[in-house]
Amino acid sequence: MKVVKFGGSSLASGKQLEKVFKIVVSDSERKVVVVSAPGKRFADDNKVTDLLIECGELCLQSKDPKEKFEAVIERYSYIAEELALPRDIINEIHDDLTKRLSSDKTEPERFLDLLKASGEDNNAKLVAAYFQVQGVEAYYVDPKEAGLLVSDEPGNAQVLPEAYDQLYSLHERSGILIFPGFFGYSKQGEVFTFSRSGSDITGSILANALKADLYENFTDVDAVYSVNPSIVKKPKEIKELTYREMRELSYAGFTVLHDEALVPAFRAGIPVHIKNTNNPTASGTRIVYERDNTNGPVIGIASDQGFCSIYVSKYLMNREIGFGRKLLSILEDFGLSYEHTPSGIDDVSVILRENQMSAETEKAIKERIESELLADLVKFEHSLALIMVVGEGMRHNVGTMAKASKALAQARINIEMINQGSSEVSMMFGVKEVDEKRAVQALYEEFFVAVTV
Amino acid sequence: MKVVKFGGSSLASGKQLEKVFKIVVSDSERKVVVVSAPGKRFADDNKVTDLLIECGELCLQSKDPKEKFEAVIERYSYIAEELALPRDIINEIHDDLTKRLSSDKTEPERFLDLLKASGEDNNAKLVAAYFQVQGVEAYYVDPKEAGLLVSDEPGNAQVLPEAYDQLYSLHERSGILIFPGFFGYSKQGEVFTFSRSGSDITGSILANALKADLYENFTDVDAVYSVNPSIVKKPKEIKELTYREMRELSYAGFTVLHDEALVPAFRAGIPVHIKNTNNPTASGTRIVYERDNTNGPVIGIASDQGFCSIYVSKYLMNREIGFGRKLLSILEDFGLSYEHTPSGIDDVSVILRENQMSAETEKAIKERIESELLADLVKFEHSLALIMVVGEGMRHNVGTMAKASKALAQARINIEMINQGSSEVSMMFGVKEVDEKRAVQALYEEFFVAVTV
Repeated sequence: MKVVKFGGSSLASGKQLEKVFKIVVSDSERKVVVVSAPGKRFADDNKVTDLLIECGELCLQSKDPKEKFEAVIERYSYIAEELALPRDIINEIHDDLTKRLSSDKTEPERFLDLLKASGEDNNAKLVAAYFQVQGVEAYYVDPKEAGLLVSDEPGNAQVLPEAYDQLYSLHERSGILIFPGFFGYSKQGEVFTFSRSGSDITGSILANALKADLYENFTDVDAVYSVNPSIVKKPKEIKELTYREMRELSYAGFTVLHDEALVPAFRAGIPVHIKNTNNPTASGTRIVYERDNTNGPVIGIASDQGFCSIYVSKYLMNREIGFGRKLLSILEDFGLSYEHTPSGIDDVSVILRENQMSAETEKAIKERIESELLADLVKFEHSLALIMVVGEGMRHNVGTMAKASKALAQARINIEMINQGSSEVSMMFGVKEVDEKRAVQALYEEFFVAVTV
Repeated sequence: MKVVKFGGSSLASGKQLEKVFKIVVSDSERKVVVVSAPGKRFADDNKVTDLLIECGELCLQSKDPKEKFEAVIERYSYIAEELALPRDIINEIHDDLTKRLSSDKTEPERFLDLLKASGEDNNAKLVAAYFQVQGVEAYYVDPKEAGLLVSDEPGNAQVLPEAYDQLYSLHERSGILIFPGFFGYSKQGEVFTFSRSGSDITGSILANALKADLYENFTDVDAVYSVNPSIVKKPKEIKELTYREMRELSYAGFTVLHDEALVPAFRAGIPVHIKNTNNPTASGTRIVYERDNTNGPVIGIASDQGFCSIYVSKYLMNREIGFGRKLLSILEDFGLSYEHTPSGIDDVSVILRENQMSAETEKAIKERIESELLADLVKFEHSLALIMVVGEGMRHNVGTMAKASKALAQARINIEMINQGSSEVSMMFGVKEVDEKRAVQALYEEFFVAVTV
């Protein structure tokens, strides 16, 4: 049995839905279909989710949401007309949305979650209606009734352990089950959404709960590329990679799949297959537990900008039990999450995402580190990029670092920082943002130009 | 004005004391002389400090310390006879030691400190007597009366800030001041020693307090070598290096100078000159605040064995604010100090010295990390060596990492771990202990064979 998830661009129009239908019915194993809200049809188009957020915010500001409301309805109507669906489905969506808009607004975030969730929920109903019109046994599944229980964190809900058992009973149902992505219900019966793009998470939870053989994630790219195509033209496609590799790549700029979406599939060992709705015969990319390491040591190179570092030095720091823990506690007091802490003997750097830091926070942190930890020097460095060179094959491959650092040296790029854990599934280089592209290109050249992935 | 410190081997015999005398009087700037206890005269010889410790432990076990006591007295007598000093100095030492042995033993560590400190204290008296016999104006200085105040931590005393002001008054005294190293007095007037080899610290404190122009540290090597001579034959000598470089090298196996000894000199910016008592015309090694970077990027390579790593992985660890801090808190609960924490996205390794860990501690730590942090995997790796490649010149030197990792790859050595902070005064490689020597040799070959340091 396969759980199949379709992203927003795969459901943006009637034409796209026709492709989705063909894909689903072409394989009888495709039993559960998770749908996103309608996405963009063209570059300047609106996503339904964005329209819903704008609509909700107008309501919260006591402004008239009519225009946005109608834009949402129009998107569904457009699809329904293209597919010649009976008018009742649009009336149903219209009523649903009207009801949601008039609901309690005392907790704005919960109100927004309720609204955002309608994008997927109503689309699932529409997709089910279309499948039925095509003469296929298909049913919309209400996540509440199916038991998709989540924590009551607006916009960041986490699935509750008991959800898995409840969802398992879906396997008894007949027909194709059309399940809306992106949200679940709290124990109190309120709607809470996952973080943005969370339909990927729904699919993964269902795959785990239903003990699926495969979780197919249909999007609009043929495969996961070994490097960002905006940095390297026509990069190699990755046929197969491990969860860990995918996770490390997605951390730094690879956004094909939602980070958290891999967790349930990973825990159940269910392979995830990234495929293209617009080119379903392309082999796509499989994310698996273990892969044959027949290729080169490196499977992908990812990079991301917007990091800064806090450098702290103190003579004989190394002798002070608890120095590192105290330093991290200070950052935690400011609600900062950090990425890495490379260290020398008497110095340590903390790498964090720059967007967490204002000039004020920076000043306050510096003062606390100086006064509480008696540091000799506290220094901030901005505009750093992190480059991840990822591959399970790197483990115990003598010389990978030599190749990588040679490539960077030849491109005259200074390495600001290196962090390589004992896991060796990745090497991380910190470089200045201005050097990021050239660094990635040099590394790609080194590891991929003569290698098939 | 110069503060001059002589190590144990420089004071092990009358012959050595003659050299010391010549060195001191050959330069009228050499005003303060810090002395260690007599060290070894030959490989199998005993150090007076070790004899004193054995003597003290026998007392604490209520055993007869006579043999050890006499061995100590004999060492001083031997020197006094060689130098034809009057017998009273030995009587004085005999009485002093007898008095110490009969003192309060209710706090064994304090008793041992009192005994250990006599090695330097009595040697300073003997050296002063010898200088006087030679017709030079020289005086033994009592650290208590001079105001060398320290914390009351047996075997690990720390100088108190007020000591510096008090010691400054020594600059008004005439003649050469012979100051015993290794210990000071608490505010309650009790003796507390620095950690082992702490006479280096005394010299540095005096250099700082007296605003000396130079702190000369006489030992038994011509210079600090760029690499351990037991790993590479006849390595290059280092003419000049910075405090930071010295600190990073001494962390991993370079034991020419006590770690803590650099702090007071460093804070006052006083250069430290390592020289050889047995070859005083050799140019030695200067430790300075800044050096001209006219040589290659690397100044020295140090290595040390006996490390282990704790590898912790948890899916989406990166999202958890406080994960690293909690992990370090657990280690702190076990009194463990750690060295480095290289990390990937969802994994982190903690490198620590193996001698802190018993199999039991290891088990307990694993359990706590698994149960409290819900880690997916906790794994220990043993018998690691850390190699430090050190040099201020590495800062912004494109390609140093490329050279280093190429050298290791060519020697077929797998790099278990790399940690390079944003400071770039050092690169650290973790390798298996069995690979340590070959790794150091390969790096030395790469960085030194065509370079003058």
